[in-house]
Amino acid sequence: MAEPLFNRMALIGLGLIGSSLGHAIKRANLASHVAGSARSAKTLETALKIGFVDTVHETPEEAVKEADLVILCVPVGICGPLCARISPYLKQGAIVSDVGSVKTAVIEACAPHIPPGVHFVPGHPMAGTEFSGPESGFAELFDNRWCMLTPLPDGDPGATDKMVRFWQGCGANVETMTAQHHDIVAAVTSHLPHLIAFNIVGTADDLETVTEREVIKYAAGGFRDFTRIAASDPVMWRDVFLNNKQAVLEVLERFNADLERLTQAIREDDGEVLYDQFKRTRHIRRGIIDEEKS
Amino acid sequence: MAEPLFNRMALIGLGLIGSSLGHAIKRANLASHVAGSARSAKTLETALKIGFVDTVHETPEEAVKEADLVILCVPVGICGPLCARISPYLKQGAIVSDVGSVKTAVIEACAPHIPPGVHFVPGHPMAGTEFSGPESGFAELFDNRWCMLTPLPDGDPGATDKMVRFWQGCGANVETMTAQHHDIVAAVTSHLPHLIAFNIVGTADDLETVTEREVIKYAAGGFRDFTRIAASDPVMWRDVFLNNKQAVLEVLERFNADLERLTQAIREDDGEVLYDQFKRTRHIRRGIIDEEKS
Repeated sequence: MAEPLFNRMALIGLGLIGSSLGHAIKRANLASHVAGSARSAKTLETALKIGFVDTVHETPEEAVKEADLVILCVPVGICGPLCARISPYLKQGAIVSDVGSVKTAVIEACAPHIPPGVHFVPGHPMAGTEFSGPESGFAELFDNRWCMLTPLPDGDPGATDKMVRFWQGCGANVETMTAQHHDIVAAVTSHLPHLIAFNIVGTADDLETVTEREVIKYAAGGFRDFTRIAASDPVMWRDVFLNNKQAVLEVLERFNADLERLTQAIREDDGEVLYDQFKRTRHIRRGIIDEEKS
Repeated sequence: MAEPLFNRMALIGLGLIGSSLGHAIKRANLASHVAGSARSAKTLETALKIGFVDTVHETPEEAVKEADLVILCVPVGICGPLCARISPYLKQGAIVSDVGSVKTAVIEACAPHIPPGVHFVPGHPMAGTEFSGPESGFAELFDNRWCMLTPLPDGDPGATDKMVRFWQGCGANVETMTAQHHDIVAAVTSHLPHLIAFNIVGTADDLETVTEREVIKYAAGGFRDFTRIAASDPVMWRDVFLNNKQAVLEVLERFNADLERLTQAIREDDGEVLYDQFKRTRHIRRGIIDEEKS
């Protein structure tokens, strides 16, 4: 087996992403030792029992000592405070990365706490399921999924390159881009869809004329497609919206204007506007299906 | 093999639903003879070649002659004019049904054209795929899906009962309800999700800052879940929205009010409102998963 990419590494946070990373690292032998840290004792115990980490540590400060790579696998809202805590314990030459769905806000919150001689390479693996916790992880989560890296303008190219190889080792395809561009791409392809899904499921649940039982029973009519992503982790998503506010509000405004146009067409019996809109969305689906085949 | 439920039946319209019905009828031997009619000569040729009908007819008038059951498998907007055309050719004692996603408007358009002695039993199988045309049908489309029947208040119970058995023979679970209730249930579980999906795919496609290529590439982040239903047949969906206007506008109003509340929370950094909303939608997903297991 080839030499591991990293000697010691630390995973801070052992939920769906942290535990999946542990499994993926073991699968490809990407690190000699994986140290894990999480807030709850039960999570640490589970992680050790499943075996996707080699050691567990009650505090992130303990976990990051001597680590060559530290990955923050926590909701984006606590990345900043976490960096402030671990900052004094980071090894010279180490790489710090994260898995947050928002990049500009995470960089603003974390970068000031990264000591000189430590490299910060923010990342976002676009992968997930509707399940949470240390038992929900699996090695294949990142296979053939995209991981976006948003290196800082003055970042170390060697560190970025190592993170590209790391994520490829986890099975992912890697793309680098600026944090600003990442945030608008994520707002469109991920954050807006989640907000709409959370919203529509709530709307359906609130109606007086249709029971929850009926909504569940007849979900296959289209509603079901929305419920998977509306079952995602509420803390993670709260933090995403609080931290990608500008980009999300921008795409929401476009979404609302478009929806108003369709609503107006329904109100005014304008079949042509409806038909034209419904027809043009088919090629996007075909593009996605083709992409998956390739 | 048991005696077929119907001697001769006619399918008017041989797209996804019409062709799937043909296959399902053959599978369970529900009719001795299936006559098919469609607007295009190519569709008729394909239908005969695949063999899900026994005979094809250039006009619906020809197809319905001597039929004991006629099912209109066409967009809801043309059900009324079609009934007017076939009306003089319907056999005494025959049943006329449809598969439209809207029921009140279809009843208003069709009922006046149903001659005395012919029974009208409106129906809506909640099943579909993103594909269209006579080649897209398959016998299993209705298996374990719901078919809603909305018999008229003064309708013949025997005819309704026969349609229940017919749809059960096609593999579906059958529920009867009023047309009014059907339309609001369908607006929530199917029409609103489709409208939102059509809309969000359009919004994503229109942004200047994010390319279509990027939307397709990163669709797995959540966007993908919306594209399946946004690839549905545009004519069918145009007619649904034009014909279930009141119920759709009603649920849209609720959807917009809810979305405005979430938008406001994002604007004002109100994490509590976001968290509460995101948390409560999980149990609906669980309900759907449990339903599918049962």
